[in-house]
Amino acid sequence: MNTRIGRQTVKIENPPIILNAASIAGVKEGQGPLKDSFDKILTDDTLGEKSWEKSESTLQRQTALLALEKAQLKQSDIDYILAGDLLNQCVGAHYSVRDLDIPFLGLYGACSTMTESMSIGSMLIGGGGAQYVMCLTSSHFCSSERQFRNPLEYGGQRTPSAQWTVTGAGCAVLAASGAGPRITHVTTGKVIDKGVTDISNMGAAMAPAAIDTLLAHFNETGIKPEEYDMILTGDLGVIGSDILTELMLKEGFDIRKNHRDCGKLIFDIEAQDVHAGGSGCGCCGSVFCGYIFNELKKHNLSKILVMATGALMNPMTVEQGESIPAIAHAITIEN
Amino acid sequence: MNTRIGRQTVKIENPPIILNAASIAGVKEGQGPLKDSFDKILTDDTLGEKSWEKSESTLQRQTALLALEKAQLKQSDIDYILAGDLLNQCVGAHYSVRDLDIPFLGLYGACSTMTESMSIGSMLIGGGGAQYVMCLTSSHFCSSERQFRNPLEYGGQRTPSAQWTVTGAGCAVLAASGAGPRITHVTTGKVIDKGVTDISNMGAAMAPAAIDTLLAHFNETGIKPEEYDMILTGDLGVIGSDILTELMLKEGFDIRKNHRDCGKLIFDIEAQDVHAGGSGCGCCGSVFCGYIFNELKKHNLSKILVMATGALMNPMTVEQGESIPAIAHAITIEN
Repeated sequence: MNTRIGRQTVKIENPPIILNAASIAGVKEGQGPLKDSFDKILTDDTLGEKSWEKSESTLQRQTALLALEKAQLKQSDIDYILAGDLLNQCVGAHYSVRDLDIPFLGLYGACSTMTESMSIGSMLIGGGGAQYVMCLTSSHFCSSERQFRNPLEYGGQRTPSAQWTVTGAGCAVLAASGAGPRITHVTTGKVIDKGVTDISNMGAAMAPAAIDTLLAHFNETGIKPEEYDMILTGDLGVIGSDILTELMLKEGFDIRKNHRDCGKLIFDIEAQDVHAGGSGCGCCGSVFCGYIFNELKKHNLSKILVMATGALMNPMTVEQGESIPAIAHAITIEN
Repeated sequence: MNTRIGRQTVKIENPPIILNAASIAGVKEGQGPLKDSFDKILTDDTLGEKSWEKSESTLQRQTALLALEKAQLKQSDIDYILAGDLLNQCVGAHYSVRDLDIPFLGLYGACSTMTESMSIGSMLIGGGGAQYVMCLTSSHFCSSERQFRNPLEYGGQRTPSAQWTVTGAGCAVLAASGAGPRITHVTTGKVIDKGVTDISNMGAAMAPAAIDTLLAHFNETGIKPEEYDMILTGDLGVIGSDILTELMLKEGFDIRKNHRDCGKLIFDIEAQDVHAGGSGCGCCGSVFCGYIFNELKKHNLSKILVMATGALMNPMTVEQGESIPAIAHAITIEN
């Protein structure tokens, strides 16, 4: 049963387990600091496909199948697969799951999709209607560049505030019972738009949404920041992370010691020349389902907050003069 | 509490009420057979905005606010708003809800979004974590034509199998208690792809998904087709509806008498020159939240199945030679 304990937060009385998780990372991501944590590192970011969109679908499907294998479950065991990605009409997910014999619920949360899917998945299990739920997301540098910015062949120069879309995917398998870290609280974000219009500065656009959700989470749960071994954001990157920690401090919450950001963890920012850090649904997806899940399993982390953030514009709305709405969804994981 | 009664179906033990619903329709839709059922008919499909995308967002926001007003609720009463649309990165929904002070979960189910949102909304309420949930979707003929086919100015000729994207929006307010029709069962679809590649024949692409979900629903619930006063599909249109009823008959289920399709109901197909009928998220959205909800309130319908269908491709994947995956989500509503 799920119990609402505040405007945005639900406590899950019978918290679902993260039974297992799988992550696959691209070539560049596999050369970064987290290289030992991924289940698989691509040797060819095309995955043998003829378009970047097909590459991303294949990446996502391989990750889903690997997660099933690691969890020692069959497709027929899974009650729902919740998936989404950044591509127009979420085609990364749709083509990845069409060969899977699993009821599907499609999500769009941009780079917040990993925690959006785990939020809904946890509540579906908590509500009694599901035993096993798969939460799946991906991004691919090359499909994202073409769609959101320019085709790679154009060779456009990147601004210093730009982030590098991670080629990677993550899939977590949630279960109603078993052993493993548990998802105890779900804080769902509101769409926040503080007027940022620079499409090359996603961190600044998303930070206000992260702050909004984080304040709601602390206020509604009564959990103190220092209780968390880690407060992990999805892909605020260097700029967004600085905004988050600074403004949270002004609000009276010091998260400087335990805040980490997947977009900063996945790359060696300077050496790998990724400007403001990593981004994309697959950033939180591959980091959470790889490095973080491994640390939870090893009991190096006992209580963490995971909050992926998403920027909810498209290139056309920004060209039409619109600002960038954003969202952040947070989940508490206890070991 | 939600109880799983089959591979794809959940029974909601404490079924949520459809407390109220609002629908707004475009100029052409307001000249069709259902003109008396909409809460509001636009006199100008631009809604005074400078782009079709902004028009769609404004349409969706007006519908959400009208639903709140009809339900006599405040934004602060609503636990979740579940919304999506057809636009790239679901910007119709994101810009419509950014001024609403309501936790948001973004969905992408293409034209299945109305029942996807009501499925998840019902299970969130059934699971105990929510008291009120808004389910919102829209489509706009002009934004869809530009994005999926050609800009209106191009004046492209339409094939006979093409459907006409409805300019319209619907918003249903679900509640944990109160008076009104109840959502008792949720059957979630799988992604089905039977190899249809004609982007101008959405009905044929979506019909196999509708059949798959409908068979699962009948088999898992034990409900017989004739128990339903109406089996309402979203936007299969003329061609998809014929495929559905014919193939269901071969499977042993005669739904010819009680099957209706929102895409056939909303237009006078011949007189309004809409070829194979209406389509779009807003088709099921505006028809369900208008005509059907009114009939439920008047007790002219006592038990119905509502199943919106969605085609999950984008124009690029079809250009890349891919076929069209589709999905259908069904909910049982009892008065």
